[in-house]
Amino acid sequence: MSTDATLRELVDKQAIYELMAHYADRIDANDPVGAAACFAEDGLGVYWQDCIGPKAIEERLTGILDRFHATSHHLSNVQIRLTSETAAAAQAYVYAFHRIKADMATPMHYWGRWVDELAKVDGQWKFKRREVVGIGSIDRGVDDFDHPGHPGRLSREAPMADFSVKENA
Amino acid sequence: MSTDATLRELVDKQAIYELMAHYADRIDANDPVGAAACFAEDGLGVYWQDCIGPKAIEERLTGILDRFHATSHHLSNVQIRLTSETAAAAQAYVYAFHRIKADMATPMHYWGRWVDELAKVDGQWKFKRREVVGIGSIDRGVDDFDHPGHPGRLSREAPMADFSVKENA
Amino acid sequence: MSTDATLRELVDKQAIYELMAHYADRIDANDPVGAAACFAEDGLGVYWQDCIGPKAIEERLTGILDRFHATSHHLSNVQIRLTSETAAAAQAYVYAFHRIKADMATPMHYWGRWVDELAKVDGQWKFKRREVVGIGSIDRGVDDFDHPGHPGRLSREAPMADFSVKENA
Repeated sequence: MSTDATLRELVDKQAIYELMAHYADRIDANDPVGAAACFAEDGLGVYWQDCIGPKAIEERLTGILDRFHATSHHLSNVQIRLTSETAAAAQAYVYAFHRIKADMATPMHYWGRWVDELAKVDGQWKFKRREVVGIGSIDRGVDDFDHPGHPGRLSREAPMADFSVKENA
Repeated sequence: MSTDATLRELVDKQAIYELMAHYADRIDANDPVGAAACFAEDGLGVYWQDCIGPKAIEERLTGILDRFHATSHHLSNVQIRLTSETAAAAQAYVYAFHRIKADMATPMHYWGRWVDELAKVDGQWKFKRREVVGIGSIDRGVDDFDHPGHPGRLSREAPMADFSVKENA
Repeated sequence: MSTDATLRELVDKQAIYELMAHYADRIDANDPVGAAACFAEDGLGVYWQDCIGPKAIEERLTGILDRFHATSHHLSNVQIRLTSETAAAAQAYVYAFHRIKADMATPMHYWGRWVDELAKVDGQWKFKRREVVGIGSIDRGVDDFDHPGHPGRLSREAPMADFSVKENA
């Protein structure tokens, strides 16, 4: 790759990472408007139901956040695959701490992933589609099994999932 | 931005990330001298009290670390805003595991953020100010509410906090 | 450093980060073949015993993964030191959530580090040596102390560990 293309890829990945971190920051700031603004105009947020566009996403997030006194969404394992100059697929692991208004003494813990499609709109990366995929949670001491599990988890007969490491020569 | 300025920004962000990771590594290595050396000469460490300069910070960290048999500070959601060629604001989420000498059987868990101001001194990024901001902890099975909470958390009437995503065109 | 050398360093660090995230993704996808493929042909995986080469590593991982219904390995604090154009040392913190087949109701939690040596083989970074170093775990509610602890943890008389922050001028 040319210097320019190489640098562009690093800058795009950094920008997408920053969008993810900013979204978590806005969620944990109890700011559904700011979190919803991370989506494209026609963006789809899958929060256990489909929400299309920042307004619908904001309303859904408001309802979810209203349950909590505090939240803290810790991201890691950010994987980004640029598919064109203005499109990308990504995922990040998330662990989330929740202080529940209804039971302040017993935090809820959540483990999962955010699985994303992104679009660059007017020079800025936005979520085109974002789905929360849980693999486990402990809600007030009770283990909750109602999670879809890792996307692409193999039975060992199944085909490979597609977050492959690109040739980095 | 020019290629040079774009590259400089990536390098500065990488260096600040590495400083944060190095600080956690030194804390978890039970090395208060190494952790304190991450601060500028006039750096302020806010560890539930103000400590100015590496020597005072080292003494404070020594007292804190003496309580623990082992610690593990897991950083994520690193957000860095370069405000000049030699200054930056940053924050990182932290979850910390603590093995307490006084009660080895029951770890302490801690969730919060480090909120930082940084300065580039003689070509090297250092903490100018670093504050631990907790949002929750579980100390030997007992939930502890004595935390200031997320900086900038909104009541939904309050103004927006300022870690905005920069135009990334 | 020249622009090219600076860019090369960022690209190599990004590629190594992506290898680490890809390995975790493959482990959590219940894909021991994909995880073992992250190692060089003569790579050494230290999983409480020495396994040399992708085939031996795959067999060992298969045995470990068979115990679990689901796992989630959350990486952070990635520190990478390039030692030549084709060699690097690295470490990452890890917290891992495990759903155990034998006791679905009580997850196992694990805190530790992966300590790595890497080699660039045919233009692609691979693990040359990877060791899991635990500092704590809670297995079905019971705290487990059988962990080696942080590599290089100081007694305060011991010499410094070597993940120093490089001059970033």
